[in-house]
Formats: sequence, structure tokens, C-alpha cells
Amino acid sequence: MLPGFVSAPVAPELARALRAEIEEFHAAYCAVLDAGRIEEWPAFFTADALYRITGRENAEAGLPVGLVYCEGMGMLRDRAFAIAKTAMFAPRYLLHYVTNTRVLAAEGETVAAQANYMVLQTLTDERTTIHQAGRYFDRFRREAGRLLLQERHCVYDSLLIDNSLVLPV
Amino acid sequence: MLPGFVSAPVAPELARALRAEIEEFHAAYCAVLDAGRIEEWPAFFTADALYRITGRENAEAGLPVGLVYCEGMGMLRDRAFAIAKTAMFAPRYLLHYVTNTRVLAAEGETVAAQANYMVLQTLTDERTTIHQAGRYFDRFRREAGRLLLQERHCVYDSLLIDNSLVLPV
Amino acid sequence: MLPGFVSAPVAPELARALRAEIEEFHAAYCAVLDAGRIEEWPAFFTADALYRITGRENAEAGLPVGLVYCEGMGMLRDRAFAIAKTAMFAPRYLLHYVTNTRVLAAEGETVAAQANYMVLQTLTDERTTIHQAGRYFDRFRREAGRLLLQERHCVYDSLLIDNSLVLPV
Repeated sequence: MLPGFVSAPVAPELARALRAEIEEFHAAYCAVLDAGRIEEWPAFFTADALYRITGRENAEAGLPVGLVYCEGMGMLRDRAFAIAKTAMFAPRYLLHYVTNTRVLAAEGETVAAQANYMVLQTLTDERTTIHQAGRYFDRFRREAGRLLLQERHCVYDSLLIDNSLVLPV
Repeated sequence: MLPGFVSAPVAPELARALRAEIEEFHAAYCAVLDAGRIEEWPAFFTADALYRITGRENAEAGLPVGLVYCEGMGMLRDRAFAIAKTAMFAPRYLLHYVTNTRVLAAEGETVAAQANYMVLQTLTDERTTIHQAGRYFDRFRREAGRLLLQERHCVYDSLLIDNSLVLPV
Repeated sequence: MLPGFVSAPVAPELARALRAEIEEFHAAYCAVLDAGRIEEWPAFFTADALYRITGRENAEAGLPVGLVYCEGMGMLRDRAFAIAKTAMFAPRYLLHYVTNTRVLAAEGETVAAQANYMVLQTLTDERTTIHQAGRYFDRFRREAGRLLLQERHCVYDSLLIDNSLVLPV
């Protein structure tokens, strides 16, 4: 468990409804990334969101920084723009698989949850490989009836990441 | 997104019920393939069904043909029979993992949906490998109360497929 | 299908509610293993539980023994203790992905179910690999309102397991 993410009892019916909603969120979020529509990615976050990709060791030690660290919509949009418009990299296909979604806590408009993710990568003329495997630790906030990510910590196990290009997860 | 598959708003309660039903469908469908009971596979389709396995590039370019292309129950049964009874190939175990199921549209008795799939393969005395990773783009039709596949497009990312044998996905 | 596990009709609403509950169970169970909190693992079982990890060939032949075989809480706790306190092995991270959960039968306080699992392993300075891929065949019993495992058969396809260390799945 990531520091700051504690499991607190949630009424079973509420937990089930929230899990369904979060699974729908993950599916929509990943469909955008799988389709390479990176410019739509910031729309899944609140204006003051924190987005981080970090290794398990760092996360467990409570170290804040990581491979990717974005605070606020400006940085998220900047990152999306950089990848979509300016980065040079070999063409690749990505697919995201999210399982084991768990509601950890719910209070008012905020929901904490975790899930396991796996990103598969296919480079031209190469076999499909496991690009990154890890856990999402998420804090959602409901705005205008819709859940948005206020915090997403992508805590990966994979210690060797293929290359220096860091796409969102 | 595959040409012809567009996301249209579905009432949240209906979308959730349909997703649950489709997840049950995927689990039953994959259990049959995982168990090697290929002769039961055509029963998941309507009589006029279209079944296709194709690469992402082809699919995005709107090219109709693929690695596998079956139109109608006759071709589906033929394929199942050929694999079960006549094909010669090294023994192997397959496991299908389906995640990220999303309802895209629902109208009357028809539901469009997508999901991510991964097929793991184990050959005798070899390590388990990723055999095929891709996305299902499905059109279901309800017949006698039960959802059946009217169209299944298996759009794979994996460019190198292990061998010439093409099992259903 | 494992001998002893037969699919029997379950009312759709009940099946759906039970599946949701079992998915929550899997997520909580795997979160404990993913976090390395092995000493909490026996709490997911009934006092008289049977836990087994076995290969597909053995399972289909109806052979009872496997790679791991535990009968009763004593043996489960013993195994957890051995791994947590006495085993020497290279540090590694594990992540469990559970998909395709299916309710097979439900009668009174007992529910039979299956699911596909995949365990990814990351050793220090190595790539993430598929450690074990297989199917859970589970019999749950409700005790004090909560589902517990009375039987878990982990039937793996992966014929080559990395090393002699056998962690629970």
C-alpha cells in the first residue's frame, strides 16, 4: 500500500457502485491511450491534479519524485502536447490491461482506489512485450457528477523500462 | 476505434447492466476456448455473424480482410471443425484474459462494445508467452433473451504471430 | 473444467451479485500477496480449507497432488510462516492479475467459481516476466456473512516454473 492510501470500511452497496464507475473510468481512460489519442488524456484529471509514475521502492520509501511528475492541468497538457507533437520515437502500439480494481475509501466527493495495470508494447516487426506492470493508487473527486482523477500514482514493478520515452500510463 | 464503431451515450444504469452481461459472455466464451472445446465456439454467434481477426493497421485503414475471415454460421462451424478434427499442430495450452470491457452504444436489441484481450500460450516444455494481444470490437444482438455475437473483430497489435495455425480468439 | 466443478444454472441476478462479491474477494486477496503480506494470506480460507497448485495435465487427469498441497488452517499457516520467516530467496516483486471471473454454481452457503490468473514477477535488475498463468477453481463458503475459500485449486499452464520457491497464488 502506498503511504497515504489506507483502506477504510465502505458500505458494500456503495463500494460496489463506485467500483463499477471506476472500472468504466479505467476502460475509457485506457481506450484513449490505446488509440494513441494522447491529447485527450488530460481531460481525465481535475485542474489541480497530481500525476506520478514511480517505482515500487521509491513509493514505499515515501519518496515523492518519480520517473514522471506532473502537478496541475498545465503540466499535464504540456506533457500530452510534448508527446503528441514534438517527441521523436519509433512507432509502437500500446495496450493497457486493468484488473483487480478495489475501492479503498470513500468520503463525500472523494474516493480512493487501487488497481493493477499492465501495458503491452508492440514495436514494428517485434514481438509484443510487457512494457510496464504496476499498480494504480488513485484519488478521485466527483465534479459535475463525474469522477475525475485528483491524484494518480502509477507504481511500477518493472525496473527496466525499455527506453527513455515516457508515455502516460 | 474501428471504423463503424462509434461511442454514443447510453443511460448509465443500462450501460452497467449490459457491461455485466457482456463480461459474463466473455468469461463463458473464453472458458470454452481455454478448455480447448472449440466445437462449442460457434454457439456464441448469430446465424449471420461476421468473425474476423485482423491487424491494427489493416483495421484502422478500413481494410476488410484479415488473418481470419468468417461470414455466417457455415464458415464458423467449418473453421471449428477443421481445427478440432483435421489440423495437425503441436499441442499447446491457451489462456484468454479479457479486461477493459466498454459498452459503446445500445439500440434496441443491438449492443456495440469493445474490450482488450490477451492470449497466453504454453507449448510443451517452453515458457508461457504472449501469443496475441489486441482489442475486441463487438456487435451483440439479443436473441431469445441471450446476447450473441453478430460481429466480432479481433484487432491484434502483435505483428508476429507464432505460426501459421490460426485458432479463434 | 476441473473434475468436481460443474456449471449449474444460477439465477442471473444472484450470479451477478455473487460475481461482484468474488471479484472483490480476488482483489483483496491479491492485494495482500502483491504487497508481500503473506502472513495475512491464511485469513482468506475456512478452517478446513484445501489449497492446491497443480499443472493442467495433472488436474485434468484427476490426480490430487500438486506442486503445493495444503489441507487445513494449520498447513496454510505453516506455509505462510515458512515463506515469511525462514525461506531464503532472491528479492522479487509479484503482481497478480485476475480476469474472467465466472460463477459456476451456488447452493446455500456454497459458491463454485473459476477465474483466470496471471502472476508477473520482477527480479532485481531483470525484466518483468510471466511467472505463472493459470485458472482458479474455487469453492467458497459463506461464514459470518463473508465468503471464504473452502477449496482453491490453482491450475497452471506454465510448465516451467522459475525456481524451486513456491509462493502462494
